[in-house]
Amino acid sequence: MHNYKIIVAYDGTRYKGWQNQKTTDATIQGKLEKILEKMTGRPIQIIGSGRTDAGVHAKGQTANFYLKDSYDEEELLEMFNQYLPEDIAALSVKEAGERFHSRFSAIGKIYRYRIHTGKIPEVFERKYVYSYNRPLDVERMKEAAEHMIGTKDFAAFCGNRHMKKSTVRSVYEIRFQETEEELQIIYNGNGFLQNMVRIMTGTLIEVGEGKKKPEDIPSIIASKNRERAGFTAPAQGLTLMEVKYH
Amino acid sequence: MHNYKIIVAYDGTRYKGWQNQKTTDATIQGKLEKILEKMTGRPIQIIGSGRTDAGVHAKGQTANFYLKDSYDEEELLEMFNQYLPEDIAALSVKEAGERFHSRFSAIGKIYRYRIHTGKIPEVFERKYVYSYNRPLDVERMKEAAEHMIGTKDFAAFCGNRHMKKSTVRSVYEIRFQETEEELQIIYNGNGFLQNMVRIMTGTLIEVGEGKKKPEDIPSIIASKNRERAGFTAPAQGLTLMEVKYH
Repeated sequence: MHNYKIIVAYDGTRYKGWQNQKTTDATIQGKLEKILEKMTGRPIQIIGSGRTDAGVHAKGQTANFYLKDSYDEEELLEMFNQYLPEDIAALSVKEAGERFHSRFSAIGKIYRYRIHTGKIPEVFERKYVYSYNRPLDVERMKEAAEHMIGTKDFAAFCGNRHMKKSTVRSVYEIRFQETEEELQIIYNGNGFLQNMVRIMTGTLIEVGEGKKKPEDIPSIIASKNRERAGFTAPAQGLTLMEVKYH
Repeated sequence: MHNYKIIVAYDGTRYKGWQNQKTTDATIQGKLEKILEKMTGRPIQIIGSGRTDAGVHAKGQTANFYLKDSYDEEELLEMFNQYLPEDIAALSVKEAGERFHSRFSAIGKIYRYRIHTGKIPEVFERKYVYSYNRPLDVERMKEAAEHMIGTKDFAAFCGNRHMKKSTVRSVYEIRFQETEEELQIIYNGNGFLQNMVRIMTGTLIEVGEGKKKPEDIPSIIASKNRERAGFTAPAQGLTLMEVKYH
């Protein structure tokens, strides 16, 4: 068996996420699997590094799949891009070691959340930003974000209320990039729970607009109570930028 | 009467252009006029600096309109952005002198044409670039573009075969900006004929792919024959960047 690693970019606007329990048709994984099935004549499973929610974008989602025969990497790449819809692109396809697993081998992920803070609506990037259209107190948000750094139980920031596995994750860094019109928050961690980046962002926005205080964060985390954290920021502002491997 | 100057940005993807003889509903001018009519209770005409074709975008289209009463500029701006669809935005509204006319007062226009030359399809900018997906010989294109500079009869580059008015225009500069994945051509002139920038771009692309020679340009221009020039490059790659006034 040959194990291939694929890096994928997508505009998540019209998809039900990377994967969906009810359908494969409107998922990115489903679109990729359909192409492999067409090529090989048999169903091939694609293993993603993790699911992205409906509407979330990616510039560096990573997945792997096994093929019985060996294929030229360049040919595989071209085939994907020939048959993928225009809102999904394969950025690279490389043969990986047999033991490479896009989820289990991942050591970190980088997400970016874009908030349009300018008063004039953003026309061209409108599907990739949260149109907040008001200023935020970024200094307060930075202070709050400091409390989110570290290895903690992030149950309060988990969108899955029936989560049975560990809700402990390590957040290495939360970086803010500001222009006059836009605030970007870049999250770097070993992994993120369902909706975690969006709930962290919603919480930081509530701090930035004065509804919560930076000092509230430690007790929100300690509560492990989703009700204590902020709102779930809209999916469209979020992009999975990179999945890191050794 | 109060004369207001408005600068507008739009994603032209789903519109039949700035203006259309058959309909106002799917035009940018129509959307703006509808808001003014709602506000004032009477039909108000908006005068654009020029028409942009169906599918062409703008970051700085300029127009003007007359109102009987005086309105606060900031309030007008907010009202437009409150009622405009998300693919159109008013960037500024300022009261102008009575004699200001967005078309007749214009002294120049800047257009940008984006060609995606990278092999991997561009996902996020796909609606704002021409997905050419192959390299072009930019040096040859620059050479060809030099022959297009100056005050000339551009009849060979006019999409309107029944043009009765002068087809003489001045092109001041054609600039090329290159990244690994994209070629941008920026056109600066006193005005452009219908489809002129798209036909110039199509012609330059044909030079860049070796179908035409840079030295062919003078005779193409001299022929005044549309058939001699290149193809009309797709609307989606084109953006009206700025309309210049004294």
